[in-house]
This record gives sequence, structure tokens and C-alpha cells, in this order.
Amino acid sequence: MIYDHFFSEALGRLHSERRYREFADLERVAGRFPQAIWHAPDGPRPVVIWCSNDYLGMGQHPKVIDAMVETAIRMGAGAGGTRNISGTNHPIVELENELASLHGKDAALVFTSGYVSNETGIATIARLLPDCLILSDALNHNSMIEGVRRSGVEKKIWRHNDVRHLEDLLAAEPFERPKLIVFEALYSMDGDLAPVNRICDLAERYGAMTYIDEVHSTGMYGPGGAGIAAREGTSHRIDVIEGTLAKAFGCLGGYISADAKIIDAVRSYAPGFIFTTALPPAVCAAATAAIRHLKTSQWERDRHQERAARLKSLLHAAGLPLMLNDTHIVPLLVADPEKCKIASDLLLSDHGIYVQPINFPTVPRGTERLRITPTPYHDNALIDALVDALVDVWTRLELPLQRHVLAAE
Amino acid sequence: MIYDHFFSEALGRLHSERRYREFADLERVAGRFPQAIWHAPDGPRPVVIWCSNDYLGMGQHPKVIDAMVETAIRMGAGAGGTRNISGTNHPIVELENELASLHGKDAALVFTSGYVSNETGIATIARLLPDCLILSDALNHNSMIEGVRRSGVEKKIWRHNDVRHLEDLLAAEPFERPKLIVFEALYSMDGDLAPVNRICDLAERYGAMTYIDEVHSTGMYGPGGAGIAAREGTSHRIDVIEGTLAKAFGCLGGYISADAKIIDAVRSYAPGFIFTTALPPAVCAAATAAIRHLKTSQWERDRHQERAARLKSLLHAAGLPLMLNDTHIVPLLVADPEKCKIASDLLLSDHGIYVQPINFPTVPRGTERLRITPTPYHDNALIDALVDALVDVWTRLELPLQRHVLAAE
Repeated sequence: MIYDHFFSEALGRLHSERRYREFADLERVAGRFPQAIWHAPDGPRPVVIWCSNDYLGMGQHPKVIDAMVETAIRMGAGAGGTRNISGTNHPIVELENELASLHGKDAALVFTSGYVSNETGIATIARLLPDCLILSDALNHNSMIEGVRRSGVEKKIWRHNDVRHLEDLLAAEPFERPKLIVFEALYSMDGDLAPVNRICDLAERYGAMTYIDEVHSTGMYGPGGAGIAAREGTSHRIDVIEGTLAKAFGCLGGYISADAKIIDAVRSYAPGFIFTTALPPAVCAAATAAIRHLKTSQWERDRHQERAARLKSLLHAAGLPLMLNDTHIVPLLVADPEKCKIASDLLLSDHGIYVQPINFPTVPRGTERLRITPTPYHDNALIDALVDALVDVWTRLELPLQRHVLAAE
Repeated sequence: MIYDHFFSEALGRLHSERRYREFADLERVAGRFPQAIWHAPDGPRPVVIWCSNDYLGMGQHPKVIDAMVETAIRMGAGAGGTRNISGTNHPIVELENELASLHGKDAALVFTSGYVSNETGIATIARLLPDCLILSDALNHNSMIEGVRRSGVEKKIWRHNDVRHLEDLLAAEPFERPKLIVFEALYSMDGDLAPVNRICDLAERYGAMTYIDEVHSTGMYGPGGAGIAAREGTSHRIDVIEGTLAKAFGCLGGYISADAKIIDAVRSYAPGFIFTTALPPAVCAAATAAIRHLKTSQWERDRHQERAARLKSLLHAAGLPLMLNDTHIVPLLVADPEKCKIASDLLLSDHGIYVQPINFPTVPRGTERLRITPTPYHDNALIDALVDALVDVWTRLELPLQRHVLAAE
């Protein structure tokens, strides 16, 4: 390969900045989640997964697996083509109806991933609005940033969750200029929430369209799992709700839900939708089963929040540097890329606990962290073992443990 | 919705140009492919699918379905996260090993789709080469065009399959400037093949890297289904082979296969890979089963070619305007967007035959066509019925039928 050295140099840069990522080869075991098998270099070993985005463990729910299995047996493995070229399978139509109903919208459109939903969804919507200005939250996910870039329209970044800054930017534009506000409901690295209602107020006052990413909240918050906007009673004021089938719903794929005309326009114009094979019928059926289950079952949501609260309380009591928020995301600050990587390695090798280090560029330099995601299936014994393991690792790496002084002393 | 009229106008443009696409709601029936159920507005009806990209019917192969079912039962429905964040599942590691072996390369990297493979793969490779020039075939697929755009580097388009033009463009650049030649092995709308060996000759002479898209050829051509470059004995001269798991392998997902360093660099730098949930273990296991089967079974490939040849011969004999090529793609020229759409509608409504109209922008205006894809499972009776139906539709639409004059007359 004549350009060998360029690729070597690119990899060398990551190594020298301690940003080179190694993937752990894991084998999920249905029915035993969050227990899994780690295919380590020296052979398979049991591990407990503490950083899954299968937040509610729905990927192993019997209803979900049954739907996948039954549909694969009935309809086969793949969709067979793009949506236009013979790939519109009946389970994808049913899934879209279910998603529209979940969010109280006219229609929904399924993509191969949440990433693609944002990338081609945002780009297509913005391009269909003449002279559109995109107003994008500073901490939006890479898929949204790529969607904004791809649109080619003018963009302005508002400081994270700062509605005053957003208002300043909106007020500087003519009312009649098309504007698209894009933001997340729940930011997955810090676990903080957007001021959804205040953003909708501004959108109405200044004539803007709203696009919310609910990938880390659908299934987990709001009535029937409809998300944060639904919990805040403001779904009807959001023009486009984007979500994923790969986190709380335990499968694969993404979607947008909106007015029929918006969905039809994206369906008709988005290259990342038109020119790609549809999701397999079995994946769609599994996702539909997960959505339907979580529409009526509150147990997973309640238990999820209770587990997160318990874990946070024990971490705090142990003096570990918990980054505070009101959600199920449990970030522990390390603030050092190398120690963050070593902490993760020690947890895996010495404690059979799998938590990935989160380093730049996923989070800003200096805020490197372990991002822990408890699920309804992490029991007390697993939580206790995690806290003990973290204290051990923190001590060995000489990371700071805060001593709490009792109020009475 | 304040911007309602913009979306209405966008949809109106498609209607007025007869480019508005309607999706048929189909239900595949494993074991009966290419027979399927069409969920028509007035109720379900049987149809025969004649435009699937499940070219070899592997989506319904018992080995493939068994692998999907068995893995879903053992490991659950989804991967649970990005590759970095707990989503590297054991079946995806095995699948990547299988793909590397298929193409005789060091390594492979799996993406959520072939579209994403090209988009983020091409963009990432080009960005890692300083001052890179991309040389792109004029008929490359939308996913490749988006990858070229996303890279942000300079690009030059060479006339489709015109190696002289490619040479002129290469010769005009300094030898030491990094260059990336991107092209397809088999162009899916015309069914023609790239001059793979001559492109590799030029790449070596002028110091360029080669990236080939084999999505319409892997599984179907070359030893063990390794593709067109393998059939031409030139895989080792291609730097990056891109392919899909969603066509001949009957599942979902895409991949690139290349030297270990290239794969590692794309793995480490490609946003469309890093920030998206991994393919479900069950989909990966199903794809691996399909690849393994087609590595040793020649029956599907031989039967596929024989079916395509038989169909082409009968269409030609019936005077239908077959667009000639040496592959399994069977395009029939209509050259009118409205008649193309009506022809497809009549085939569906009156003959229970499903073939999508292919109009602009998928093909240039004036070359609208029906694109027929026979599979090993289209038997003689189905082929005869298709030819009869096409003659009927051609006659009713007053489309030209060529009368063949026998040489003896």
C-alpha cells in the first residue's frame, strides 16, 4: 500500500494522545443480562456490563426475542431492497404506525440507525426550507452536527441549554426567515435535560421549527415511554421528534415522527433514506414488540430510576466524584485520559466489570469519565460490587475520594 | 406547522414531474420466495417479486434463518451500544474475520449499511491522505458521491468506465500527490462492469489508491463469491473492497475489507462508524452463515446466471427493449417516466407481478426503465408469465415492440 505511512501516522497520533480505542469482544447472554461473556485474549471470562445503552434490558425481553424469531422464521432474514425497490415490508409499516401513535404524530419514518435519522433527516428538512438558518445546541451529538453540515445551510450554535443565548440568536433574524432549532431532550454524556418548554416558547415567539433528539429518553420517560417532551406535556409543540430503536427498545434503527407532510417530504428527498436497504422485518417486529410492551408496562421505567438513584447514592456516600444530574446516566469524573483508560482496564481485568472509558472527542478534554448506565436488571449485589470495585480502583490510581463530613460533627 | 407550504411545494414538484414514489407494502414469505403477499389498499393479494436485491434468495435460506433465530435466542435482539460502548459482539468479530478471508485481505470492518460504508469510509480515507484528490466514476452510487462530498477534498469525475479519461486526469497530477480512485465493480442500473484490471494498471502507474464498490457482485461472481475483482484475479491490487450484507447475502449491513492499518484508521476516525449502534448479533450471524454457504456452494451462482440468460433471451425474442449487458441485471427501457410508472402499476394490479419503475434521479431522465432481477428461485413458469405480462403491458401502453426479422427471410 503506497500510502501506508499516512495511516500509520494517523494511528500514531491516537496512541500518543492516549485516545486509541480497543473494543472488548463481548457475548451477550439472553436471560442473564447484564451478565455477559468477555472473549479475552486468554480465553472467555464472565463480565457484568455496566455501560450498555440497552437501558431497560429490552434486548433480552422474551416478547422482543419472540417477535424477532417468529418474524425471521416467517419472512426471512433481510428486507431484500430499499424501501422503494421491494424493501417496504409489512412489519416496517406497522412499526411506523406504532411510532407515530407513541408520539401522538401523524406519521413516522424508520431509518437504518438513529445516526442516519439525524444526519439525513436534519439535512433534508433544512434544505427544503428556503434560506433556512439552523440553530444548534453546542453539545448536540455528532450525528446532528453531521446533519447540520450536510444541509449546507447557515448555522448558529447556541450555548448548551442556554435559552437566553438562543433567544438572542432568534431575535436577530427576520421573523419570516425559516429557522430550525435542533437539540437533544437528554444529553447522554452528562445526563442533563433540555428546557423543552422554554425552547418551544421561543420557537413560537420567533417563528422557528423544532427538531428534538429523544434517543436517550424514549421508552424511559413520559407516559407510555413517549419521552421527555411528552413528560413535559409539550410533544404537540415539537415539529419533529427523532428517536432510536437501539437503546431503550433494545434493537436497531432510528426514526423521525412528525406531520404527514414532513414525513412524506423526508421520505421523498432524503438520500440516506432513499438509497439504502430497509431494516429487516424481524428487527422491525422486535422493535414494535418492545414499544408496545413499554407503552403499558411502567415496571421497567420505575425500577430503572430506582436503580439509578440507589447507585448514585452509594457512589456519593463512598466519596466517588459523581457528576450530578436528574436522569439515569451516572457519570464519574476522572479528568485524565490515561487514568480513565487504566481504571476501565482494571475494572475489567480485576473485577469482571465492563465500563468503557469516555475520552475526547466524545467529551471535552479534561472531563474524561466513566459513564455508568444501571438497568432494571442490575441488582443490589451487582451495585454493591461495582461501588467496592470503583473504590479499589480509585485508591490504586490515587484518584481523589471525597470524605463527607457529617452535618452533626 | 408554520412551514407547511414549503413541504407541500416540495411534494408538489415530485407529483408534477411524475417522480412521486409510492411504496408497496409487501410481506415476504420465507420458503416461498419470490412469492410474497402485497398488502394492497383493498386487502392482501399474492405477488411475485421481480425486483429484489436479495439476488440469490439467501434471505430465506434455512442456514441463514437458523443462524439468525439461534443467535437471537442465545444473545437477544440488539447489540446494546456502539462498538466502543459495549456493542462489539462476538458474532460481529467473527463476521469481520469471515469477510477479510473472503476477499483475501488482512481485516474488515462492518457498518450498519453499505450506504454508510461508502459515505463514512470514503470520506475518512480521503481525509487521512494529505491534499488527496478523489477520482470518481461519473455513475457512482449516491452513497459514494456523498462520501466524496463529505471528505471535503478536491474531486474529479471521470467519464463512466472511460479509462482514457481517467488516465488523462491521473497524468495531470504530480505522482506524489495522494489520489483515491473510487468506482463500482458492477453498476446496478445498467448492469455493466468496470474495467477493473485496467484501472489497477493506471493506479500503479500514476501512484493512486483504489476503492471498489462490489455491492452488486460479492456473493455472485468470482471464486467463492469474492466478487468481480476476484474473478479478474486482481483483488490483491485493490486497496479497499467495499461490499454489502444486504443483497446476495440476504441480510443487512455493509463493510470494507483492506490492509489492517487502513481498517484500523477507519475504525478509529470514521464518525459514521464510531457514533452508531453496532449491528445486532443475530444479523451478523445470519450474514456469516450466508457468506460461508456461498463460499462453497456454486449452485446459486450458476443457476442465477442461467436464469438471467434465459429471461434475457425470451425478452429479446418477444421484441422487448432489453438493455444489453453481461450480468444478472435485466433492464427494460421505457424512456418515459409516466409510462414507466403505469407499466409497473399494471404489472402489479393486473398480473400480480412486482417490478418497481426506475425513474430520475436514480437514472438519467429519458432512460426510465423497469429493472428486473431474476433469482435462482424464479422458475420457468414465472419467467414465461413475466414475459407474457410485459408484452401485454407494452401493447396496452403502445410502447414499441421490435419485430425480429429472421436471417433466412
